[in-house]
Amino acid sequence: MAVRIIEVRERVMARNDELAAGVRERLHGAGIPAFNLVSSPGAGKTALLERTLDALGDELGISIVTGDVQTQNDADRLARRTERLVQAVVTGGACHLDARQVDTALDALDLAATGLLFIENVGNLVCPASWDLGEEAKIVLFSVTEGEDKPLKYPKMFREARYAVFTKIDLLPHVPFDLERGRRCALEVNPTLQLFETSALTGEGLEEWFAFLRRAVHPAPVPG
Amino acid sequence: MAVRIIEVRERVMARNDELAAGVRERLHGAGIPAFNLVSSPGAGKTALLERTLDALGDELGISIVTGDVQTQNDADRLARRTERLVQAVVTGGACHLDARQVDTALDALDLAATGLLFIENVGNLVCPASWDLGEEAKIVLFSVTEGEDKPLKYPKMFREARYAVFTKIDLLPHVPFDLERGRRCALEVNPTLQLFETSALTGEGLEEWFAFLRRAVHPAPVPG
Repeated sequence: MAVRIIEVRERVMARNDELAAGVRERLHGAGIPAFNLVSSPGAGKTALLERTLDALGDELGISIVTGDVQTQNDADRLARRTERLVQAVVTGGACHLDARQVDTALDALDLAATGLLFIENVGNLVCPASWDLGEEAKIVLFSVTEGEDKPLKYPKMFREARYAVFTKIDLLPHVPFDLERGRRCALEVNPTLQLFETSALTGEGLEEWFAFLRRAVHPAPVPG
Repeated sequence: MAVRIIEVRERVMARNDELAAGVRERLHGAGIPAFNLVSSPGAGKTALLERTLDALGDELGISIVTGDVQTQNDADRLARRTERLVQAVVTGGACHLDARQVDTALDALDLAATGLLFIENVGNLVCPASWDLGEEAKIVLFSVTEGEDKPLKYPKMFREARYAVFTKIDLLPHVPFDLERGRRCALEVNPTLQLFETSALTGEGLEEWFAFLRRAVHPAPVPG
């Protein structure tokens, strides 16, 4: 039994990787960097996107694909903040988005008017780590209301991510979270992680985050 | 392909249900109520258990099985607080505990000295909802640092649970969380959910939680 499950699973994953390669090619052809946002439920993916849309939605031409197990609450929240396109995907029980869902969602977006794509994954620190969606990079959000050792307990996600965003840092005076220890745990699992520290409530740290996104859309020309 | 996956999955789930029935019978025979604690990562399962062990560990004879994807950090945290037995299960990538793991963990516990069992599941609001572990009831923890609409977005978990514990209520003055709306969302999904509101940091609300656990271990005699 165990062997057979793995076989089937491997074929499903292989098919997903093919579809993800197609999505990546499609986005690359359109010149659109895409970030796959992953985190625990409630770490603040939607709140960070709301602030990002307010500041940079039009400037960078941001489009968004949001995934939820049930409801399209996150898509509705974002759509209230922007005239830009937000495409909802309801996974209907699945604990992650897959490349086929993203590929289909792209059909509904105006890629010619898109300069930057966010894919807001299902809130889950396990499943989305294994599913390539054709993104340029995974960005893992990590709330200071969680334990500092989350990266050690969910190492695959923190290894798969290229960036980590500490969220809700306005709560640091009220929670028993040691930011330095949180940083150390993240870098222990993935020494090349680039870290951000943000509060969507107070705006602290968002300028660095915005500067990073501007650079992702308009890379500095290579001198020479 | 899709059909075949479902078939295999159904057989795996059916086998789990058989094993869970065995665990339930085993616990029932030993007179041990068992609660399966589920939540997002970082919602405070371990912190609530620490406080519960401090207050009731010896009085009620609490034993604990903790599940983590990687590390046995939670088990180590709990073991520092108690001489009582804490059995760690590392799922090695899986997003939930299963009944076989609990069955094996029970072998390592002193059931004769156990009056109440907690099973601390993997931090995940999707997968653990589908896996019966032989528990008497699932208890879902729901931190006020998450959005009030978590029950709507993860309805299966809130439907499978018989109890919901709002955690970190000491943070209410600092977070944009409307407790009344949180209660409404939870009860909309599951009208018979029994709610608790707690802070493991300040101790607020713990007396009600402790009283509930005492009643679970020593039910009032039926009058007659």
